[in-house]
Amino acid sequence: MKQAYLRGNEMMALARKMWPLPRSISGPGLVQTLKLIKEELPNLEMREICSGTKVFDWTVPDEWEAIEAYIETPDGTKICDFSENNLHLVGYSVPVNSYMQLEELQLHLHSLPAQPDAIPYVTSYYKDQWGFALTHRQRESLMAGLYKVVVETKKFPGKLTFGELVLPGKTDKEVFFSTYVCHPAMANNELSGPVLATQIAKELGKARNYYTYRFVFIPETIGSLIYMSLNLPRMKRNILAGFVLTCVGDEREFSYVPSRSGISVADKIVLSVASKLDLNLKQYSWLDRGSDERQYCSPGADLPVCSIMRSKYGEYPEYHTSLDLLDTVVTARGLEESLEFYLAVISEIEAKRYPTASYVGEPQLGKRNLYPNTSIKGSFGNGRKLTDVLSLSDGTLSVEEMSRILDLELPELNDLLGVLEDHHLVDL
Amino acid sequence: MKQAYLRGNEMMALARKMWPLPRSISGPGLVQTLKLIKEELPNLEMREICSGTKVFDWTVPDEWEAIEAYIETPDGTKICDFSENNLHLVGYSVPVNSYMQLEELQLHLHSLPAQPDAIPYVTSYYKDQWGFALTHRQRESLMAGLYKVVVETKKFPGKLTFGELVLPGKTDKEVFFSTYVCHPAMANNELSGPVLATQIAKELGKARNYYTYRFVFIPETIGSLIYMSLNLPRMKRNILAGFVLTCVGDEREFSYVPSRSGISVADKIVLSVASKLDLNLKQYSWLDRGSDERQYCSPGADLPVCSIMRSKYGEYPEYHTSLDLLDTVVTARGLEESLEFYLAVISEIEAKRYPTASYVGEPQLGKRNLYPNTSIKGSFGNGRKLTDVLSLSDGTLSVEEMSRILDLELPELNDLLGVLEDHHLVDL
Amino acid sequence: MKQAYLRGNEMMALARKMWPLPRSISGPGLVQTLKLIKEELPNLEMREICSGTKVFDWTVPDEWEAIEAYIETPDGTKICDFSENNLHLVGYSVPVNSYMQLEELQLHLHSLPAQPDAIPYVTSYYKDQWGFALTHRQRESLMAGLYKVVVETKKFPGKLTFGELVLPGKTDKEVFFSTYVCHPAMANNELSGPVLATQIAKELGKARNYYTYRFVFIPETIGSLIYMSLNLPRMKRNILAGFVLTCVGDEREFSYVPSRSGISVADKIVLSVASKLDLNLKQYSWLDRGSDERQYCSPGADLPVCSIMRSKYGEYPEYHTSLDLLDTVVTARGLEESLEFYLAVISEIEAKRYPTASYVGEPQLGKRNLYPNTSIKGSFGNGRKLTDVLSLSDGTLSVEEMSRILDLELPELNDLLGVLEDHHLVDL
Repeated sequence: MKQAYLRGNEMMALARKMWPLPRSISGPGLVQTLKLIKEELPNLEMREICSGTKVFDWTVPDEWEAIEAYIETPDGTKICDFSENNLHLVGYSVPVNSYMQLEELQLHLHSLPAQPDAIPYVTSYYKDQWGFALTHRQRESLMAGLYKVVVETKKFPGKLTFGELVLPGKTDKEVFFSTYVCHPAMANNELSGPVLATQIAKELGKARNYYTYRFVFIPETIGSLIYMSLNLPRMKRNILAGFVLTCVGDEREFSYVPSRSGISVADKIVLSVASKLDLNLKQYSWLDRGSDERQYCSPGADLPVCSIMRSKYGEYPEYHTSLDLLDTVVTARGLEESLEFYLAVISEIEAKRYPTASYVGEPQLGKRNLYPNTSIKGSFGNGRKLTDVLSLSDGTLSVEEMSRILDLELPELNDLLGVLEDHHLVDL
Repeated sequence: MKQAYLRGNEMMALARKMWPLPRSISGPGLVQTLKLIKEELPNLEMREICSGTKVFDWTVPDEWEAIEAYIETPDGTKICDFSENNLHLVGYSVPVNSYMQLEELQLHLHSLPAQPDAIPYVTSYYKDQWGFALTHRQRESLMAGLYKVVVETKKFPGKLTFGELVLPGKTDKEVFFSTYVCHPAMANNELSGPVLATQIAKELGKARNYYTYRFVFIPETIGSLIYMSLNLPRMKRNILAGFVLTCVGDEREFSYVPSRSGISVADKIVLSVASKLDLNLKQYSWLDRGSDERQYCSPGADLPVCSIMRSKYGEYPEYHTSLDLLDTVVTARGLEESLEFYLAVISEIEAKRYPTASYVGEPQLGKRNLYPNTSIKGSFGNGRKLTDVLSLSDGTLSVEEMSRILDLELPELNDLLGVLEDHHLVDL
Repeated sequence: MKQAYLRGNEMMALARKMWPLPRSISGPGLVQTLKLIKEELPNLEMREICSGTKVFDWTVPDEWEAIEAYIETPDGTKICDFSENNLHLVGYSVPVNSYMQLEELQLHLHSLPAQPDAIPYVTSYYKDQWGFALTHRQRESLMAGLYKVVVETKKFPGKLTFGELVLPGKTDKEVFFSTYVCHPAMANNELSGPVLATQIAKELGKARNYYTYRFVFIPETIGSLIYMSLNLPRMKRNILAGFVLTCVGDEREFSYVPSRSGISVADKIVLSVASKLDLNLKQYSWLDRGSDERQYCSPGADLPVCSIMRSKYGEYPEYHTSLDLLDTVVTARGLEESLEFYLAVISEIEAKRYPTASYVGEPQLGKRNLYPNTSIKGSFGNGRKLTDVLSLSDGTLSVEEMSRILDLELPELNDLLGVLEDHHLVDL
């Protein structure tokens, strides 16, 4: 019997809406994409940072907007029309409105001889130039002659926008998801990350969670750097585990890029879940990293962030080309299976806690009716177990380790921890 | 030939004087008990903390005083007379002066069906109520009818008193003893602790000790919390090893509750002494803890405190009842054997030091006549050994470890350390 | 074919110039010695500290100057003339101008019965006394009678002088050399250290080095204590490896006294070089230490300083006597071989780096033309390797470890690091 992939189809539908928007690391395509996400997640906060702001070694670039871009061939045919496929225009191209011979035009054209039917994804954020990307087949067919080139774009001191959603849990300790919304019309890399992040947030938004869940929808690289520059102390204090969501929409094998240490809570949980699900997880090394874990795990940041993908960026043929399409690469099934894996990871995290006692010394359980107020031989009852749990709550032992030490079944232990948490006696 | 147990008898005599005093966690019985201890240890300091003071998660309770408490049966017999046995009145009972039917009275009576001849020890420090404890046999014999109930007590914003004795040693590093003086007429748990602590202090007061010895006589739980709230930084800096003195008066097997880490200096010394004495030490786990080590070893406090007992609280039949009597449970022999074990532990501690050099770089031994002032080939002599010892005095090596590293016999090494100590060149 | 030992002869020549200067821990002999070194190393800075300054447990002693010192025998012969051999006068002797019987004079004479032809090296810096050192053979030949004793010295609040040379490298991380210039006419212990240090500094001064090299020429003990008291925070922050240069001029076996930890970068490099050179290195223990590593490695200082010698002080017969001569003990060959070993060590250090990334997050390589400004599939090139290197630059991995992790040959990795360093992206 065929599966319905209802949630997969929901994600596909959102991806289709996002598809035509002219995304880049700033500008209206990015903002409109965030607005589509905000329609799904009304609590999404739109954040802005001004062009020119210094961010570690970087500077937030000018805002960029593309109004129109195309080439007119000598015979008057309009090709490389940005309005037909965003990939035709090199991202952050400067304006040009000019006639030129094919020879000169060639210096501004990008294609992939090895993939003659693919338009490559090309950007030039930090150097002023203009260019068009097209299939190699089309490029080869261009005749000599005078071409008209129109690139109507604006680059101006403005803003870079990103989205942040917090789902407060019972504790400030947080699980962090980062995905990027700067890639134009490509499906696996990268509409799959934002739509999966949106879906996860929707699902989590329905439940009362132990952990705080934070989702950031940012332009890649500059976005994670901006976010860290604004939040690193809090991130270091609160993030229990983090994940970069990217390339999660195709149906191929799952894969995993570890955090720099390789032994963070995030890594341990991913490996534990994969093992429980008997899932074949293709394991890359830190040296294979390629997305925002590059920033989150950099020396000095050292956050517990890893990445679970399907086909990893750079490793599948359609990567960074116009062939990375919805339906042919990204499917409802691919997205839904990724959702299921992430939900399993989240479920595992939710089951894991590292309690920390709120007070030095035992708290006064009696005044909270957690301990008999009349003390008589043999009257401890559950109060004893509560103090046992508290006495191990030094923030270094997981609940599972406590369970083994105390010889208490997990359900009972979790009940006890719930009581302690309700009374603000442990921070989980 | 029968042993005299002279010191055991001395402790028994003190316990007999303490016996009738109406102890609780505050009030005149506690103060009078401390005064008896001060007669033995004139340097004992009486400390006070006001009711209402916040102590971590706790609040110092109001002071409580019991003037009179009894029940008059329908036939005019006075029973449960507090002046006959302090255990009859539930600790911290609120006043009542009233007539009531047996049925209503029963709601305020406490007895132990399984130990029909024992009056249980019952308290209610933090919730306002009143009650009487009596033997189950007596309770069963009560006839229906109208009873007169008199509880004349006062609960008022006042003070909680505790005692502290410091025997300064050559070093600020200290050995810490904590015992509790809040239990009324019971012998092993708990007059044995205070009388043993008093005796140890008297013995140590006669000697010149390496370590500073500190004794606190406190009400259990609230007392240790108060003490930590006032002294935790100093405790963390100076306490080398600490012991909770409780249940040390009977003749049954020795037992041991470890510190939370289980590997503190206190633990290592206890186990080493037990092994040297070929003593069968019943080893409990941290989960069996039950007295003030609960506070001293709590997460965030993490002090090196363990407990050596005879019959552990909760584990012997007379525990927390009127059956926990002098002579039948606690004996001169039991107390004296415990004294001997603790003195052996102290003797072992005195033999152990963790030297710390007082200066960066080698000190100038010559100006102290510890090194030849005329330097000529081969003239080092003992000065060389002194610098060897200093060069290892980083506070992480015990003298025994130094002895092995330096291949120096302990007596010689101790002599060298004594010289360095006399010149304030190491802190031992 | 005989080797020329050109640099050995250069060191011998400097030692010969230093030989007659009346060195002590202060005074004109020390200053003139430093001036000779400054002739070789014009950037040597002369530093002064006032008598009476407190230095950890020590006080900088008064300055001392010897003008004339001799004994006139009853038959009018001048013996023990300081102007003939500095060793005749006990260092820091107070003045005397007096006649006395041999019996009284004997109390002020020092000789070595076991080495009857050696004048011992005797000092008394911190206690006021006077004395003469002579061969035991001469002492035995002294006839009874009245002796004239002349010691014309001055001890006065003045200065203690030391020399410091910094050869700035590409990085503030430094390699530290300490040698002492307080010993009078003796060759291995100690003109060999200062002349070798001078030679090393001259050689290093010709090159552009990665590391900063610092040389201190100090009086032993009081000098290293003074230097640490003035510079300890910087030393702890910057010193990668340090060496005490002493007893490096004879031709006997190489020997090594480790740092206190025994596993510092200095130790690891020394052992690695000795192994590469297949050099038989006599390994002493920390307990055999005897020079300024006593101060540099003391508890609280804990610097990574060890010592490579030829015949270790105290272990060769001529040690601390007039027999420790140039040519017979110290030779051009001995010095040059030591130079070669130290240069090999330096070469090894220069090859070792512990990169630290300058920024949190990846730096922006594109703006430095280190990364393609146009991003298109497969365009990473060398930029990828640069980010790989940066991602491991957490200051805990040596370049060699990085090389293994990245599977990059050292030359290529060093090139990459050079690029990153040129752009101030790593601190090596």
